[in-house]
Amino acid sequence: MAAISTAPEADLALDESAMAVARRRWTSRAKPPGSLGRLEDLAVQLAGVTGLHSPRAPESPVVVVFAGDHGVVADGASAWPQEVTAAMVATIDAGGAAINAFAGVVGAELIVVDVGVAGSADGAPTSVLLRRVRSGTGNIARQPAMSQVEAEDAVRVGRTIAATCVDEGADCLVGGEMGIGNTTPSAALIAACAGASPLDVTGPGAGPPADGMEHKRSLVEAALARVGDRGNSMDPIELLAELGGLELAALAGFYTMAATRRVPFVIDGVIACAALCVADRLEPGTASLAIAGHRSAEPAASIALDHLGLRPLLDLGLRLGEGTGAVLAVPLLQAAARALADMADLPTG
Amino acid sequence: MAAISTAPEADLALDESAMAVARRRWTSRAKPPGSLGRLEDLAVQLAGVTGLHSPRAPESPVVVVFAGDHGVVADGASAWPQEVTAAMVATIDAGGAAINAFAGVVGAELIVVDVGVAGSADGAPTSVLLRRVRSGTGNIARQPAMSQVEAEDAVRVGRTIAATCVDEGADCLVGGEMGIGNTTPSAALIAACAGASPLDVTGPGAGPPADGMEHKRSLVEAALARVGDRGNSMDPIELLAELGGLELAALAGFYTMAATRRVPFVIDGVIACAALCVADRLEPGTASLAIAGHRSAEPAASIALDHLGLRPLLDLGLRLGEGTGAVLAVPLLQAAARALADMADLPTG
Repeated sequence: MAAISTAPEADLALDESAMAVARRRWTSRAKPPGSLGRLEDLAVQLAGVTGLHSPRAPESPVVVVFAGDHGVVADGASAWPQEVTAAMVATIDAGGAAINAFAGVVGAELIVVDVGVAGSADGAPTSVLLRRVRSGTGNIARQPAMSQVEAEDAVRVGRTIAATCVDEGADCLVGGEMGIGNTTPSAALIAACAGASPLDVTGPGAGPPADGMEHKRSLVEAALARVGDRGNSMDPIELLAELGGLELAALAGFYTMAATRRVPFVIDGVIACAALCVADRLEPGTASLAIAGHRSAEPAASIALDHLGLRPLLDLGLRLGEGTGAVLAVPLLQAAARALADMADLPTG
Repeated sequence: MAAISTAPEADLALDESAMAVARRRWTSRAKPPGSLGRLEDLAVQLAGVTGLHSPRAPESPVVVVFAGDHGVVADGASAWPQEVTAAMVATIDAGGAAINAFAGVVGAELIVVDVGVAGSADGAPTSVLLRRVRSGTGNIARQPAMSQVEAEDAVRVGRTIAATCVDEGADCLVGGEMGIGNTTPSAALIAACAGASPLDVTGPGAGPPADGMEHKRSLVEAALARVGDRGNSMDPIELLAELGGLELAALAGFYTMAATRRVPFVIDGVIACAALCVADRLEPGTASLAIAGHRSAEPAASIALDHLGLRPLLDLGLRLGEGTGAVLAVPLLQAAARALADMADLPTG
């Protein structure tokens, strides 16, 4: 098994020539120049990602929700007990989560992948893809989340799922996640990648933990203290092993494969942003192809977006994860691509 | 024909009891409290509009584009010649405008109504509803836009169309418009209603006119000078007659009927915002039932939204009109309603 970080690098630059054609097409379209605002940039970005000067509107979007648990919950990182992760996986499987409702609205297929939920997998719903690398992570405030081999395996799970989705016809990929406690490793990863402080990256996540925000911050701080100054220059696999989560690693792999396959992919909230920070180290250029779906209310999300140079499409105060914010942006991709492709040229009056 | 302003007032208050039930339903749903951000408020608003504590997700949205021309174009209000209005009506009819692409993405029916395009109506596309009250307005910088009877007629066109749409099954109404020069009367109406200055309300619209922004501002100023201090307290029909446009009047009527019929309706950009200011005077409470789809890049739109107490859902720098920004918000209404209705309650872990 070759280390992922030594795999030949894909060329992940935006296709400037397709983008230039798309920009020219906008200028002749039946509307005042620039009047579609950010949707014009979005269509140009889709051209850059796909290499098509008239990118197709996504018709078969797929949302993949990666689920994993986090050892740091034992130290009080979350207001919710760890068991809620498995319970929410079952809820998504049964169609009762927010992501089910939203995926239905945009006509997206929804796939749930257990890449690291804690506890026995015996009772897991059969529609959930069981790709468990380990059952939950170590407590990052005290020890590494996982081994580097496990981190590589989890990244590979995400890459393989993305590749399979694309092979089966997905033309837009949305990554989501479910994992009680996962804003804590996300905050740590973002702090390490963006050089931000524990104070700035720690937010309430799914609600302030029982021991308060100060305590949550101390957990982020302890995790970062373990890696010390190495964080900002660390190998991405090492970073995931030290501070990550299994669903975070899988999401990072998912994004790198989406970028490699040149399929538009939409980033969700703070966990997704943390995974994209790592993905951009795994395969430099991944972030330049990404589309930021929304601005999560969690403060570290904005820090990561700024770090990656991304401006989100939606800003609705969401902080739920599951891919909910990202999937809501899919109609905007469709609208941008359809307008560029289908609009008539300016009437001459 | 009774004057619209003396018709018995509908009760346009939000249904507080339906909203309270909707709010309670959110608290038990399978997600952290408040984590769907503004979509939670949106579903509550839909409950308040429809009176249903679990409002249905719109399945049959309809976009109505009202088209009209503006005499002030003769004085250089726009970068575009007046003939572009009729040409764009034909373009929408042929499926080649941005609104066609966007309506297609959200599955909305699209209806175009000629309520006041200039020139002969003989060549107008047959699919366009011909409800022309007059062929273009007077030049508001020098004279009233229309008579009060014409303003009432145009309002009635909008009301009738909205009622017909609802009778035929529309469960979400989006108003759009097409009219070269119509940011000028919109700016004047917003200045009069919100008490803002010509400097603040005048924006580039579809692009700065050949004679520059200073000139456009002087036209808004001249129109406002004609009505003087009466603007802020004027009867809405008189306001439309003095400063309005035929599509603006029709949109105002469209909104009041959507509100009266308790069907969710989504507001587009600056012209729509101006029409809503008037609608809220025609039928007080209309604005409280409205859903602001997006924040137009045109400065007067934000002034009107603030004046009406509305916070838009999207902010994508659009300034095209046609209903484009509003229709993009329809999936958000669907997502909010579906999540409230379909989500399971919290797992107990």
